[in-house]
Amino acid sequence: MIHNFNPGPAALPPDVIARAQAELADYHGCGMSVLEISHRSKEYEAINAAAEANLKALLGLGDDYRVLFMQGGASMQFALIPLNLLPAGATAEYIVTGTWGEKAYEEAQRVGAVRLLASTAADGYRSLPSIDAITPDPQAAYLHLTTNETIQGVQWPAELPDLGSVPLVADMSSDFLSRPFPAQRFALIYAGAQKNLGPAGVTVVVIRQDMIERGRKDLPVIMRYATFAKNNSLYNTPPVFAVYMVNLVLEWIKDQGGLAAMAERNARKAALVYAAIDGSDGFYSGHAVPAARSLMNVTFRLPTPELEKQFLNEAQAAGMVGLAGHRSVGGIRASLYNAVAPESAAALADFMQDFAKRHG
Amino acid sequence: MIHNFNPGPAALPPDVIARAQAELADYHGCGMSVLEISHRSKEYEAINAAAEANLKALLGLGDDYRVLFMQGGASMQFALIPLNLLPAGATAEYIVTGTWGEKAYEEAQRVGAVRLLASTAADGYRSLPSIDAITPDPQAAYLHLTTNETIQGVQWPAELPDLGSVPLVADMSSDFLSRPFPAQRFALIYAGAQKNLGPAGVTVVVIRQDMIERGRKDLPVIMRYATFAKNNSLYNTPPVFAVYMVNLVLEWIKDQGGLAAMAERNARKAALVYAAIDGSDGFYSGHAVPAARSLMNVTFRLPTPELEKQFLNEAQAAGMVGLAGHRSVGGIRASLYNAVAPESAAALADFMQDFAKRHG
Repeated sequence: MIHNFNPGPAALPPDVIARAQAELADYHGCGMSVLEISHRSKEYEAINAAAEANLKALLGLGDDYRVLFMQGGASMQFALIPLNLLPAGATAEYIVTGTWGEKAYEEAQRVGAVRLLASTAADGYRSLPSIDAITPDPQAAYLHLTTNETIQGVQWPAELPDLGSVPLVADMSSDFLSRPFPAQRFALIYAGAQKNLGPAGVTVVVIRQDMIERGRKDLPVIMRYATFAKNNSLYNTPPVFAVYMVNLVLEWIKDQGGLAAMAERNARKAALVYAAIDGSDGFYSGHAVPAARSLMNVTFRLPTPELEKQFLNEAQAAGMVGLAGHRSVGGIRASLYNAVAPESAAALADFMQDFAKRHG
Repeated sequence: MIHNFNPGPAALPPDVIARAQAELADYHGCGMSVLEISHRSKEYEAINAAAEANLKALLGLGDDYRVLFMQGGASMQFALIPLNLLPAGATAEYIVTGTWGEKAYEEAQRVGAVRLLASTAADGYRSLPSIDAITPDPQAAYLHLTTNETIQGVQWPAELPDLGSVPLVADMSSDFLSRPFPAQRFALIYAGAQKNLGPAGVTVVVIRQDMIERGRKDLPVIMRYATFAKNNSLYNTPPVFAVYMVNLVLEWIKDQGGLAAMAERNARKAALVYAAIDGSDGFYSGHAVPAARSLMNVTFRLPTPELEKQFLNEAQAAGMVGLAGHRSVGGIRASLYNAVAPESAAALADFMQDFAKRHG
């Protein structure tokens, strides 16, 4: 058995893979693969509608929100958000708690006027900024933050502090659907699918109707949220297979008990790995301060780069893959997204204890 | 057996579907699905490199070209091409021979200065413009055309007329890799994969190195061709499964004998269907004039809308799907992309003869 700790693309539920495989050559008896059906067919329209409905049901959202299935990844959203929502004369505010927030902020600077409201760069992105030091401008076009920083392993709590009345825009690529959260507080949420909700190739955008309406009208048509909303994400050919897979994952989440069940499962997994860090007498040192620890990406170092290399090699030999930290920071990162089995987290924690005992 | 005449997403080679299905749960013995592997893994880097190499080999292109795997469809390229390649003060020229060329031209107008060099709108997009009437400006930023118009069924010959020294940019979404053509004449070629080369979800861009270098540097990073070229299409997470499928299709084309074999196969299929039109004593009327007929999309009308409806219903009952003309033009459209079997074209031609006999 392989334990897949890839940071994204990442593990998918085995039941979802099995179902996709079983019906790959003939989708629901139509005689064609889901890869071969038209995006205007009744089969695909049903998938598209079900994916939107399942997602809104999981988030508890009503008609004042739309779900869009777009392409280009979160990185494309870094540009599309200010292009759509940051008109000339206005300012957008960014809170940066890691590499992805930094990228979002840098890309927005190429589009319009932005202000860095808070950053934890000075402490190496180990923590969350003090809320007392943050004063959002209620007149800002929007306030952007990254709920989970995949590379540093720093996560905001599900219940964010009070940030005033400014429209909140959140990159949730790496913790979307991993726990219940008050989705109604957000004006726009986006997430690349390849961590918690499907394969690479589709980006989910959850957007409040008023944000669609206030979008700039002088953009290329394909870059407007309004185009996707008006056409139910079918203005042009969507990434059919990726949306199909997302819908299978959404049904799996529902079958498991929804976001509360995911939160329980994810907390249990992360607790095992953090316990292995905290119980190692300093052999493993976590990157994030305890109050900012991510339940999705557990990041830590070993005493030396040589030991880290040995750790990765031995883990690989034991069937644990995807544990190398991001090339920009090194160290170890265990990604524990929804589909990662509790048994995999337990196997990793056991391995960590054993490795520390042998080398500590 | 289903005969899949979908205009895109469209039929894929049965061998490709079978292989994807067989290895979906365990990619080459790595213990994970291709949907779960990292885009930084050696497995995916091999897929990515093979897809670029296979494509360049099929096109006979060398180091002065790059192949990029992007997202967003041809519709995103309609915007990205002028954003990258149409600087302030310059003009781009468009030849419009159908709906997709029209859309490309309209989107470019939202970005910069464009000139309509020729259009066949006046004759309902049935023909190709007379080359004598076209005088490209050698100083233009580029000249854009659509080699095959999917909706109208109008196709340029593989060997384009002489258009001077202006950089040629071509939307080949619906006839890419369907025949040999002098790829070296183009500065940029783009194609959504979902017709001739794979599933929906990836757009192939073949770009000459000098066009990459002349791209605008003040765009969002994610919108620059240079970003994709410099990072081998791995600046951010690519649509892994779609690129994997494209590579399987490229290998299938190679195994069939390459572009020459595709051209022979496609000409044979189209000849069967056009013969059914031409032999029907006017019961079927082709949309395109014979000199502009597409080998990819055969478009025709029946004497009345009622007969067209009956034709589609009976065809569906006989296992032939995807034959309805685009909702913007009506009528019948048979898409005969690479993967459509010659037996399917023969079955359609037989059905057309029989239907005409019964209703003519």
